[in-house]
Amino acid sequence: MEARTSVIQSRLEQVKQIICVASGKGGVGKSMVASNLALSLSQKGLKVGLLDLDLYGPSTHVILGVQPDSFPDEHHGIIPPVVHGINFMSVVYFTEDKPGAFRGDDISNIILELLAITQWGSLDYLIVDLPPGIGDEILDVIHLLPQSKYIVVTIPSKVALRAVEKLLRILKELDVPLLGVIENMSFKKDSMVTAFCETEGAPYLGRLGFDESLEDAIGDPKKLQTSLFAEDMDVVVAKLG
Amino acid sequence: MEARTSVIQSRLEQVKQIICVASGKGGVGKSMVASNLALSLSQKGLKVGLLDLDLYGPSTHVILGVQPDSFPDEHHGIIPPVVHGINFMSVVYFTEDKPGAFRGDDISNIILELLAITQWGSLDYLIVDLPPGIGDEILDVIHLLPQSKYIVVTIPSKVALRAVEKLLRILKELDVPLLGVIENMSFKKDSMVTAFCETEGAPYLGRLGFDESLEDAIGDPKKLQTSLFAEDMDVVVAKLG
Repeated sequence: MEARTSVIQSRLEQVKQIICVASGKGGVGKSMVASNLALSLSQKGLKVGLLDLDLYGPSTHVILGVQPDSFPDEHHGIIPPVVHGINFMSVVYFTEDKPGAFRGDDISNIILELLAITQWGSLDYLIVDLPPGIGDEILDVIHLLPQSKYIVVTIPSKVALRAVEKLLRILKELDVPLLGVIENMSFKKDSMVTAFCETEGAPYLGRLGFDESLEDAIGDPKKLQTSLFAEDMDVVVAKLG
Repeated sequence: MEARTSVIQSRLEQVKQIICVASGKGGVGKSMVASNLALSLSQKGLKVGLLDLDLYGPSTHVILGVQPDSFPDEHHGIIPPVVHGINFMSVVYFTEDKPGAFRGDDISNIILELLAITQWGSLDYLIVDLPPGIGDEILDVIHLLPQSKYIVVTIPSKVALRAVEKLLRILKELDVPLLGVIENMSFKKDSMVTAFCETEGAPYLGRLGFDESLEDAIGDPKKLQTSLFAEDMDVVVAKLG
């Protein structure tokens, strides 16, 4: 394992910033945030990579309209295909044809393997879509990509915040740099998430309003980029500096 | 293991029907459906148990307003506490104080253990809230509770249906009895999920409209039972016969 972890670092030598997008719970729009974050940064003229490590349900390829039919080119490692200006790599290239049940160790190995073989080249940002929850694979990524900063996505829901609370506690214990919390699928401006962030001492990065028409934009990055969701996302991205 | 699996069956001897609630993806409201299904059946005067096996993010206790502070009584096995008329048992009693990262084998063992020690007694229905996704733990439950019937919860979203498609394929391959698919968080009557069910040959059990006020009812079963969500749920329950 140690040989592969040093390979991973050499693969990322020319990557200036890594942002991992996490969520305490599935279904809060983590992949939508990660995809749009990548699109938004790319539109600013930055060189951006997007890595989907969500083995439980990879979806950034669906959101970006990528058909993961053929395995990317291999040339001393895998070269990520360029999708709408983004260097794109996903676990789906490994898992698409499998029924999708993995044990913890398989997951760790797939993550390790994918990080070790992907040739990102020079990037301003690498956005990583993490698996939901607070499983061991999050701990693996924290260990393997120690230079990463984290964004946590939540929705204004007691059930989701219960899970986020646990995730934030783990990130804090491990001294992981937290960029902040994004509130997604927000119907109204209320104080549930802002108050929560204050209690937890976590920066609040902003709210993304619930966008009913977003579903129609899935698979169509051009539509995504002109959605209300993307507008809200740009405000959040501006805060990231 | 075999000794424990036969214990499991003897624990369930007096349970007339087991319904497992699954989802291809997290965050589609699976736990909300499972909790309300249990409440709805219980209100009809039936004896109902609710078992939360969602190790990734147990939430039925939050929905029902249960504080899992003390481990339930042990008397030749664990006796589920009665919560609003429902015999309630959850993995949260095992996991509440832990950070929440489990490897696959731990998960299988916890599920096995919980099924082996819980004394359900006589029930008309046992509702099981499964982990989201299509991990090995689903296969474990299919193996350990072969008499179960399945309900699959989805939302009208391409990303969610992609995951449901995989789940339905697995259930079909394993000859698992499928009661049908519930469409949750539905904003408008459209044909996305009904058309999907037709293609997949899966019964469509009905739609649960998006209920903005549902969040306020979390933790308060009385409010839950009078919500629009519960009204829609009753229509679905009536179809289950």
